[in-house]
Amino acid sequence: MWRELAVIGREDSTGGYRRHAWTPADADCRDWFRAQALARGLDHRVDRNGNQWAWLGDPAEGDAVVTGSHLDSVPDGGAFDGPLGVVSAFAALDQLRDRQARFTRPVGLVNFGDEEGARFGLACVGSRLAAGRLGREQAFALRDQDGIALPTAMERAGYDPEAIGADPELLGRIGAFVELHIEQGRALALPESGGARVGLASAIWPHGRWRFDFRGEANHAGTTRLADRRDPMLSYAETVLAARREAELAGAVATFGKIAVEPNGVNAIPSLVRGWLDSRAADQRTLDTVVTGIQEAAEQYATRHGIRLDVVRESFTPVVEFGDALREELARILGDRGEPVPVLGTGAGHDAGILSESVPTAMLFVRNPTGVSHSPAEWAEEDDCLAGVAALADVLEGLACA
Amino acid sequence: MWRELAVIGREDSTGGYRRHAWTPADADCRDWFRAQALARGLDHRVDRNGNQWAWLGDPAEGDAVVTGSHLDSVPDGGAFDGPLGVVSAFAALDQLRDRQARFTRPVGLVNFGDEEGARFGLACVGSRLAAGRLGREQAFALRDQDGIALPTAMERAGYDPEAIGADPELLGRIGAFVELHIEQGRALALPESGGARVGLASAIWPHGRWRFDFRGEANHAGTTRLADRRDPMLSYAETVLAARREAELAGAVATFGKIAVEPNGVNAIPSLVRGWLDSRAADQRTLDTVVTGIQEAAEQYATRHGIRLDVVRESFTPVVEFGDALREELARILGDRGEPVPVLGTGAGHDAGILSESVPTAMLFVRNPTGVSHSPAEWAEEDDCLAGVAALADVLEGLACA
Repeated sequence: MWRELAVIGREDSTGGYRRHAWTPADADCRDWFRAQALARGLDHRVDRNGNQWAWLGDPAEGDAVVTGSHLDSVPDGGAFDGPLGVVSAFAALDQLRDRQARFTRPVGLVNFGDEEGARFGLACVGSRLAAGRLGREQAFALRDQDGIALPTAMERAGYDPEAIGADPELLGRIGAFVELHIEQGRALALPESGGARVGLASAIWPHGRWRFDFRGEANHAGTTRLADRRDPMLSYAETVLAARREAELAGAVATFGKIAVEPNGVNAIPSLVRGWLDSRAADQRTLDTVVTGIQEAAEQYATRHGIRLDVVRESFTPVVEFGDALREELARILGDRGEPVPVLGTGAGHDAGILSESVPTAMLFVRNPTGVSHSPAEWAEEDDCLAGVAALADVLEGLACA
Repeated sequence: MWRELAVIGREDSTGGYRRHAWTPADADCRDWFRAQALARGLDHRVDRNGNQWAWLGDPAEGDAVVTGSHLDSVPDGGAFDGPLGVVSAFAALDQLRDRQARFTRPVGLVNFGDEEGARFGLACVGSRLAAGRLGREQAFALRDQDGIALPTAMERAGYDPEAIGADPELLGRIGAFVELHIEQGRALALPESGGARVGLASAIWPHGRWRFDFRGEANHAGTTRLADRRDPMLSYAETVLAARREAELAGAVATFGKIAVEPNGVNAIPSLVRGWLDSRAADQRTLDTVVTGIQEAAEQYATRHGIRLDVVRESFTPVVEFGDALREELARILGDRGEPVPVLGTGAGHDAGILSESVPTAMLFVRNPTGVSHSPAEWAEEDDCLAGVAALADVLEGLACA
């Protein structure tokens, strides 16, 4: 199962995956999901927002237990982020059938569309649409870097974009959603986690993106005296270092990973350096402290170099607390097995975070020895993946079986 | 004359010029040059490398006095860099004719092709080819960002690329080349220049371009603990600041104006930050000190953050000392007028720098009140431009007339 999926959308030059929404690689992943569903005699459906479902039992009965994740990737992403949750869902179902489990609730396996947002710049489009947290009009306005609109891309992939929109009927049938995901840090790999292979999510940290525009004066790099320069690259560089310091002080994270420079010529002092800050923290107050600290430092640097600074918050997601009741039930189920089950916060957004407002939701994390994520080097040991499947099977059995 | 030229290749959105080699805007500039030559009864010729010439007298007589500059521009360049030297050449000739000067040597006016190198990435292509400092094969391998090769571009513009190559016959006919150019700093505008509108060049500083590749590890910006990161943006930022410090200490210039980041995603710690350093100094030893200092600092930062650093020198031009004899003759001619004529070094490359190895060469600079260059804000006062024309006319009269 893993091997069939592993070849889809892999870029030979980098070893990374390029499975972006509504591309041929995405279609191949969807074909794979459909084939897995049919091979197991599950009822395969695509909802109005392009999310894929494989049902055991009739979802119309309601109170369904759903598990799954996504199959799309970031540019040159790893093999695990997303697919591990989908593959584990099929594998866990296989285990339950081997155990001849008797299902008392419908069980759904899901592949949410466009979780990474690599193509249209917005993450979790499939779950956002379903949960009514992304409007039709906004969705129709999304464009990829070639200017292709989301509905056009869906249409070209053979889906009807006219149908997209909130899907309360579908969500109303779900009694619990459990998403298994590779950990995107290495908290489980640290000694204090006591060798646990699987953990439970407490919350998704609040996070946001801020654009810092440093505007100076374009000039000749060879002939302009240092004293006469208004070089925005200097203020940018100082701000990158301030971000690291502020995040360290607060126990948060802050990253400048994207930059755009004008005119971006070797012999030109830039007129504009535009840097994007991504920052996340365990709680809102800490995040505010970090970002305010970075912004104040940047303003000081800019003033000193004669640079105009504009800071725009481009996106923001408040903290997502997964409900206590479902997590406690999962902790009880997994705790019965005698292994430690650490509870972790995470800085990454997930479809589970989107659904948590509408549906009782929980997340399982599988140990990541290096913590590497969104990279071809992303990795989990096979034993840990199998431990994840076993944990997920136990959870499904505990929730959906007599 | 100035007004006709001012509208060619100007981008309305920025006010800057985009007159890149062998484009329609370049062709319009060339048509303008030809029309100016013919209107004055000069003999218009295009040499084998696409440089344009307007001759008064027969260049075959030899020992010609040549003046001019270039009409192409950097992306969104200013109106003066290049064109001021060409327009001043025609205007100076007009003044000499008004004075009924008697010419004893042939006089050539020149528009060198592709001085800025904005399209094919190599500066002074026209003069380099003529001087035999750029081989046919290398020239044929030059490509613009759309992959169009230089010979293809020349052909499309109606020139025969088969003819390009060293032109010793042409250069052998030139007894002196004087290029007038807007100053690309503001040394003449400083009080210590005593209000001089025009200066003389001593030398072109040695300069080079170095590419710094900082390679870390791509990772998720939200979930990777600071302690687990290998973020090359931090080492880059520290190096930008080190470059400024080293340049300040040495009285040189050092600039990071161009950057390329992979994967350049807001939520991704970069795997690669590639920064280009442009550095120049008054002499070779100082430049070596500055660049070595920056490189050593960068290596320390990289080591500390677990970053692999590779530094590649992409280009280097040694110091160009303009010959003393011609400069002293110009200083004498201009000194006779009772105005101060400061002698300045410059950090910018010029066709005059290329020709100086083959031909006695000098440069005149016209005052630039702000020092801004390679930008739409580049500016010289009309009175200063007229002073430049008068100085050039006196120089031509002193060199070429009885």
